[in-house]
Amino acid sequence: MLLYAQRNPQPVPLLDVIEAGSFESKLAAGSDLRTDIPRYRMWRDGELEEETTDATEAWAEHPDLVAFLIGCSFTFEVGLHAAGIEIRHQTLGRNVPMYETSIPCAPTGRLRGNMVVSMRPIPGGRVADAVAISGRYPAVHGAPVHVGDPAAIGVRLEEPQYGDAPAPLRPGEVPVFWACGVTPQAAIVASRVPFAITHAPGCMFISDVINESYAV
Amino acid sequence: MLLYAQRNPQPVPLLDVIEAGSFESKLAAGSDLRTDIPRYRMWRDGELEEETTDATEAWAEHPDLVAFLIGCSFTFEVGLHAAGIEIRHQTLGRNVPMYETSIPCAPTGRLRGNMVVSMRPIPGGRVADAVAISGRYPAVHGAPVHVGDPAAIGVRLEEPQYGDAPAPLRPGEVPVFWACGVTPQAAIVASRVPFAITHAPGCMFISDVINESYAV
Repeated sequence: MLLYAQRNPQPVPLLDVIEAGSFESKLAAGSDLRTDIPRYRMWRDGELEEETTDATEAWAEHPDLVAFLIGCSFTFEVGLHAAGIEIRHQTLGRNVPMYETSIPCAPTGRLRGNMVVSMRPIPGGRVADAVAISGRYPAVHGAPVHVGDPAAIGVRLEEPQYGDAPAPLRPGEVPVFWACGVTPQAAIVASRVPFAITHAPGCMFISDVINESYAV
Repeated sequence: MLLYAQRNPQPVPLLDVIEAGSFESKLAAGSDLRTDIPRYRMWRDGELEEETTDATEAWAEHPDLVAFLIGCSFTFEVGLHAAGIEIRHQTLGRNVPMYETSIPCAPTGRLRGNMVVSMRPIPGGRVADAVAISGRYPAVHGAPVHVGDPAAIGVRLEEPQYGDAPAPLRPGEVPVFWACGVTPQAAIVASRVPFAITHAPGCMFISDVINESYAV
């Protein structure tokens, strides 16, 4: 996974690696990775086994688990909002729609899979601003990986594989796609990983680090 | 025109103002603005009167003419090309397609008019790069003013008002629109300016200044 992240930094931007036997991230003093995430997914042999709000028991069964914290595009949404760009899924009170694409990630050992992206509709006149703002945050996926043509990356807008469906695009809006931290979950499925615990899409670990500290 | 440029810096980015009585720009030693531009347009009462390759005679009739040199997006095409982004109109050996939009410029005195834009098809996966690269050159129009939905800015892709028609977009490409230095010509028409000489669209003055010196 460490090498997979190194080879795929846009979808898997590593913020912290917590070694086996520890549950605390240095990004939040006193954190407990087994319980601080709002919702977990348990994976066995590449299949989703269950979702839960407490990973303590499963974690205890696998004392060799190493935890990886990766950046989330929710971080740069603050910058987009501050620039007057509406975050549609926030307006709607929904999770962001996420899609498995046809864009392959660089494989590593037995890990392989396609990139997952999140989508936000952006008015055509603000796409340049959205690129510039999100581009300042490479640690949380950075600039968009695709703008405009869902089919070109194997995406059907109405049918996200993760998160909530988007409302129809308004006239003048284009779909803008950012690399998404759900990408490792697609790799778990594609690679039939024996066991893993992940966050549920959109249910992120919240650190003590202020957003702006990830800006370059 | 000076104030019009100040109020509309993206479509009318002023690089030099040459005062009445002079024909030489400081951007090119020994230049003669009456003959150095490949093709001129003569305007009278807001209508295109003729195109010519030598403006000496018309200039002599109007000794009070003040010349304005504005940046051209052709300058940042070098950066796009260097990043491996195809410039389709160059590949085709054509002029770039230019469109009068429904985006109003900020009026000034009697000058008013809509913004003119140039269009380049960009693969959806390179839009972020095209924004970042062109955004480094605000003096030559900078980042795109619109991405993706021609109708939203009153544009029909097949029917440019200036330059050459584009070839059909390839799958996965999105139309990207940059502010264009033909915008003052739209203002000449809309404002019925008594007399003006401009370049013909795509027929630019070539300075001695290297492209990169306009990068920020």
